[in-house]
Amino acid sequence: MGSNSELALPKVPVVFKDILAKKHEGQELSAEEISAIVDGACLGTMEPVQIGSFLTSVYLNKLSPAETSTLTLRMKESGDCLNWPDDIQRLTIDKHSTGGVGDKVSLPLAAALAASGYKVPMISGRGLAHTGGTLDKLESVPGFSVSLSQEQMVNTLQHVGCFIAGQTKDICPADREFYKFRDATSTVRENGLITSSIVSKKAAENLKALILDVKIGSGAFMETIEKGRILAQAMVDCSSSLGISTRSLLTDMNCPIGNMTGNALEVAESLQCLKGQGPKDLDDLVISLGGHLLNLVDPVSVKSAEEGSARIQEHLADGSALHKFQGMLEAQGVSSEHARKLCDPQGDVWSVLKRSANHTEILSDKTGYVESITAMPVAQVVQQLGGGRDKPGAPINHAVGVELLLHLGDPIREGQAWVKVHHDFENLPEKIASQLRSALVVSQSPVQVRHTRVLEVVNPSGQVEA
Amino acid sequence: MGSNSELALPKVPVVFKDILAKKHEGQELSAEEISAIVDGACLGTMEPVQIGSFLTSVYLNKLSPAETSTLTLRMKESGDCLNWPDDIQRLTIDKHSTGGVGDKVSLPLAAALAASGYKVPMISGRGLAHTGGTLDKLESVPGFSVSLSQEQMVNTLQHVGCFIAGQTKDICPADREFYKFRDATSTVRENGLITSSIVSKKAAENLKALILDVKIGSGAFMETIEKGRILAQAMVDCSSSLGISTRSLLTDMNCPIGNMTGNALEVAESLQCLKGQGPKDLDDLVISLGGHLLNLVDPVSVKSAEEGSARIQEHLADGSALHKFQGMLEAQGVSSEHARKLCDPQGDVWSVLKRSANHTEILSDKTGYVESITAMPVAQVVQQLGGGRDKPGAPINHAVGVELLLHLGDPIREGQAWVKVHHDFENLPEKIASQLRSALVVSQSPVQVRHTRVLEVVNPSGQVEA
Repeated sequence: MGSNSELALPKVPVVFKDILAKKHEGQELSAEEISAIVDGACLGTMEPVQIGSFLTSVYLNKLSPAETSTLTLRMKESGDCLNWPDDIQRLTIDKHSTGGVGDKVSLPLAAALAASGYKVPMISGRGLAHTGGTLDKLESVPGFSVSLSQEQMVNTLQHVGCFIAGQTKDICPADREFYKFRDATSTVRENGLITSSIVSKKAAENLKALILDVKIGSGAFMETIEKGRILAQAMVDCSSSLGISTRSLLTDMNCPIGNMTGNALEVAESLQCLKGQGPKDLDDLVISLGGHLLNLVDPVSVKSAEEGSARIQEHLADGSALHKFQGMLEAQGVSSEHARKLCDPQGDVWSVLKRSANHTEILSDKTGYVESITAMPVAQVVQQLGGGRDKPGAPINHAVGVELLLHLGDPIREGQAWVKVHHDFENLPEKIASQLRSALVVSQSPVQVRHTRVLEVVNPSGQVEA
Repeated sequence: MGSNSELALPKVPVVFKDILAKKHEGQELSAEEISAIVDGACLGTMEPVQIGSFLTSVYLNKLSPAETSTLTLRMKESGDCLNWPDDIQRLTIDKHSTGGVGDKVSLPLAAALAASGYKVPMISGRGLAHTGGTLDKLESVPGFSVSLSQEQMVNTLQHVGCFIAGQTKDICPADREFYKFRDATSTVRENGLITSSIVSKKAAENLKALILDVKIGSGAFMETIEKGRILAQAMVDCSSSLGISTRSLLTDMNCPIGNMTGNALEVAESLQCLKGQGPKDLDDLVISLGGHLLNLVDPVSVKSAEEGSARIQEHLADGSALHKFQGMLEAQGVSSEHARKLCDPQGDVWSVLKRSANHTEILSDKTGYVESITAMPVAQVVQQLGGGRDKPGAPINHAVGVELLLHLGDPIREGQAWVKVHHDFENLPEKIASQLRSALVVSQSPVQVRHTRVLEVVNPSGQVEA
């Protein structure tokens, strides 16, 4: 009786209510039971009322690491996976962030990783509410297409090394089903469900290594480091269990990243970074995340994250990352002329990108030192300017945004402009100005500023960092 | 600004996911929120996935007494209520049981209460799985109709004093919606949901007083007295909060009630009870439940449950309850001749009722005293004989059943017949015989038998029994 004999056994009919009863009692579901639920949700054999019950039971009773791992694997297998030729496959790496304000890290990082000789098949998303979306940012470049065929993806990885594209409907259909229902039932914020949603889509990219950026703070999904650490551990363990070398950084998300928030503004700032002139905190994030990823995917050649960071820094400094970015723009539909103008170190990006005609500066009513610029009001203002959307699918205005003129720790005088709003109003509504004013915190005494946004590194459970 | 001004206020749109989030966090929902959910489930504006989430959140986080009371009221108001003329209204009383084996108490009790001058608009249900249904039992009487119009109900209460009918689709439609979903999501066993389901239907009968029989033991929904007490308290408090004088008895449901289990057999045994010749435990239940109910509805005339019990006993002894039962049979479609034959103290009920042609006696393989006859195997055997149904709506065989020949505490000899099975098989299958044998527990030493099945009385919270 070989192990194959079990394939011949008649399948026991699935009784969803029995599986639900088991989960309600707090018991761990078997791999077969989890699989039955994913199949049932995708094939429509599980009633919506039962899917709502499953999600709520999971929300209140949590998912174990084993349940999370199985759910993630089954969600990945619910649809197509990206397939790569062998020479690409062993080099595929990617980054995922839980979402921040002014978070344009993916743009310079993908290019810097490609410049390091790796392949970055980055499937990304769109913005909703106050959260920006990488695809929306890139679409502020005229001609940029986020829809690539599998063939175009392979070609781009072969000839450039990175692409940033949208999810197709064939990738992780179970995740789309579950997400729709999680939203309707207020069960979005459960670590096992968050993990399976994020990791299943990354696993469908067929990756060797993955770095996760879990944002912590007032502008992030996770407000405290304690909660962020638990989510990061769940994601790192789950992703590792699927054979992807994974690590997570917990990074500070109290103030917007860099100076720019808004779609075209963030592309412009990404180009600054690729030209070696980016704001320090953005450079630091790109270099830190990239450094860990290079160490993860090839720990023999890159013995530490610091060693990896040095390589990334080199690619930002020597123009090789910028060159990759230019190649990616062209491969994804941007004209050679536009791509060249954007990536010319002496060129004016605003000859290609569109920025609102009107801008308004807001003045400080205090003297002292910039202690904080709270991310959330900045993000909400960008949304109100038209740079974000309320509902999936709604159009957005790429030209608007918020530009910070001062950094944390800078001295500030009463009457000094600290922020410039790019907008399409004749006069900036007072409501928006006052919302922005609420973001600025001024201290009477000098402010100590952390040199990095990285708060903590999370390795797979049981693994000690070298 | 009178209180009516609020009617003119625009209604805040209901966001079900916000209500769900609140319940998931363990907060108590407001009356408005509970109402929105009941409306949403009935009108179809709440998605099934959200109803599944609500039920599961309630199952895991429980319902508070206030939430239960509101849910019950709104479920009652989701449909029609029975309306009575004033002279009937002030006399309406009823009993509800959580379901037992051989539980035919409703039949003699409704008639005895009518004989006491009260009005009993008893809406009852059908059996499912091992649970018998009062309507199924009554339908073993040729001609008996469980469908009555509101006019027929009023007439029957006026001229007889009691009826036993089925629920119409217009009574508590929300309960039907919820029940269907509770079954599919394994959330049936939550006290708040059980309470709202039972009490809403009783409240729709427009009652003055209600006695609840919560069955405890191996043959019941509630296996321990601790669990039964909590459910009984929830139901008593909820029903009282809706203005119905309510009390609950916790009663022993380890052995079948009386000697007969099976539809026609139970009608026959009910008639024995009404003729003053019922088995002691059945008489005791009828008298106890009825006694409490008479004390509840008119504590001035009937100062205690014991006083009430004496009245019920009188009506069973003097034939007045039997007379009411005969009247009810005729009012619900049974021919006068059949009704007369059934209710003739000297008549043979089997000239009207149908009993299976075949019967098989099962013999004891031990000598000693009957310590227990476990209810569950008896109920399961009746179902396997065809006397119960697997699915709602399936037909059943009224003529089959199990007849116990001995009582608890009786001496028993090896080889003595202790049970008679009425069946339609040529030979009783060994599987059934062996299942029944598993029900008999014989003790070597004499067995102490409780004189009553009543274990405990549950009054409304904060009320001390007089």
